[in-house]
Amino acid sequence: MLEITSKNNQKIKDAASLKMKKTRQEKDLFLMEGIKNLDMALKYGKVKTIFTSIGLPKLGQDIETYKVNDEIIAKLAASTNPEGVVFICEALKPQKEKKDYHKILYLDHINDPGNLGTMIRTAAAFSYDAVIMSEGTCDLYNEKVIAASKGSIFLIDCIYDDIANYDKPIIVSVLDDDTVPLSEAKPLKDFILVIGNESHGVSEEIITKASQKVKIEMSDKIDSLNAAIAAGILMNHYK
Amino acid sequence: MLEITSKNNQKIKDAASLKMKKTRQEKDLFLMEGIKNLDMALKYGKVKTIFTSIGLPKLGQDIETYKVNDEIIAKLAASTNPEGVVFICEALKPQKEKKDYHKILYLDHINDPGNLGTMIRTAAAFSYDAVIMSEGTCDLYNEKVIAASKGSIFLIDCIYDDIANYDKPIIVSVLDDDTVPLSEAKPLKDFILVIGNESHGVSEEIITKASQKVKIEMSDKIDSLNAAIAAGILMNHYK
Repeated sequence: MLEITSKNNQKIKDAASLKMKKTRQEKDLFLMEGIKNLDMALKYGKVKTIFTSIGLPKLGQDIETYKVNDEIIAKLAASTNPEGVVFICEALKPQKEKKDYHKILYLDHINDPGNLGTMIRTAAAFSYDAVIMSEGTCDLYNEKVIAASKGSIFLIDCIYDDIANYDKPIIVSVLDDDTVPLSEAKPLKDFILVIGNESHGVSEEIITKASQKVKIEMSDKIDSLNAAIAAGILMNHYK
Repeated sequence: MLEITSKNNQKIKDAASLKMKKTRQEKDLFLMEGIKNLDMALKYGKVKTIFTSIGLPKLGQDIETYKVNDEIIAKLAASTNPEGVVFICEALKPQKEKKDYHKILYLDHINDPGNLGTMIRTAAAFSYDAVIMSEGTCDLYNEKVIAASKGSIFLIDCIYDDIANYDKPIIVSVLDDDTVPLSEAKPLKDFILVIGNESHGVSEEIITKASQKVKIEMSDKIDSLNAAIAAGILMNHYK
């Protein structure tokens, strides 16, 4: 295994530059860290380069790997406890065709990366086929999205696209008068469940097109649930 | 209104020291920020001191208020957009008596402050009576807990206490063989719903005492849901 000892090495600088969205988009690459994520990435993704300060088991794949020190790991990692492994992955490609998407989670301008990552993890847990993200939803490869998704980005197609490109019944959760309590809402097999922006909710345009408007019944002392919590409750119903 | 112009003023130093758990515990005070939180605190809590760089409407209460500059607000605030208001609150006291707790959320060593705040918000939304936190659960007045709770800490009793002090049926979510799918689990009126630590789940000791073991049915490709998401789904069922 080759060794890199300086954090000013060009390979390290190039890897660190992937912390910026602009570079990720230019190079079609992103950074991940941790042993469990590496397992997932080796199984389901395309790992390009590995930097490690610990001993790794046999990979079973021929991947460019560098032995580095903890200082370099700290420079590349997002967390304070990166477990001695940081690696570069190729940007993800959809695994299914659009026509094979039955259960879609559509995210309408989700801002918070933790929410995005958690919703991807939940959608994968409930066997959704895709997470479609509107323009203006935060970057899939943001380090906080990656951390919150716990490796689930490899298990479900995550695509930036417009809801207009999908012809399916739309479900939204709103607090209007003409909404049905979630517990009484009919299950569907083919649908788009929409989760709106943390502050502004679902766009008016999408609400107009919705075929099911449901509400999660709750105390009137609270304005709303956290977006990822609402998404979890809705996906547990529509699964 | 009195004005403070230096961030080295003793009042500002004292307020800033509440960013540390140790000082919060010694003084029985905590910091909050933002206009909506101030509304909630004035209505349901006890506000001790307000620091503001903006014009505030009449408070209707006689509260020590200081006009300060944006630099001082930035020193006291946790967020990057504190809306020009930071204030000190007295630590919260339970509003109900223990015997009046019917629906309890028990948090068994929850580590992540965002999870804790979100679970408090969800418990308040579903009209739970109390959030009981085990020893080892993170600090209620941590700035990330406060941010994620969105003012709901004023609407529900949040107490550090041991589950052994509550004599009610215990519900846990585990993936053992003898668990009931959540959709088939019987509703209860008086219960303790337990959410376990993000990495280690619910303590073995509590699982042994549980009278309902349920599971949220999901794909076997995913190990677990995020703790706050699982809590949301469970509270939506047990409400």
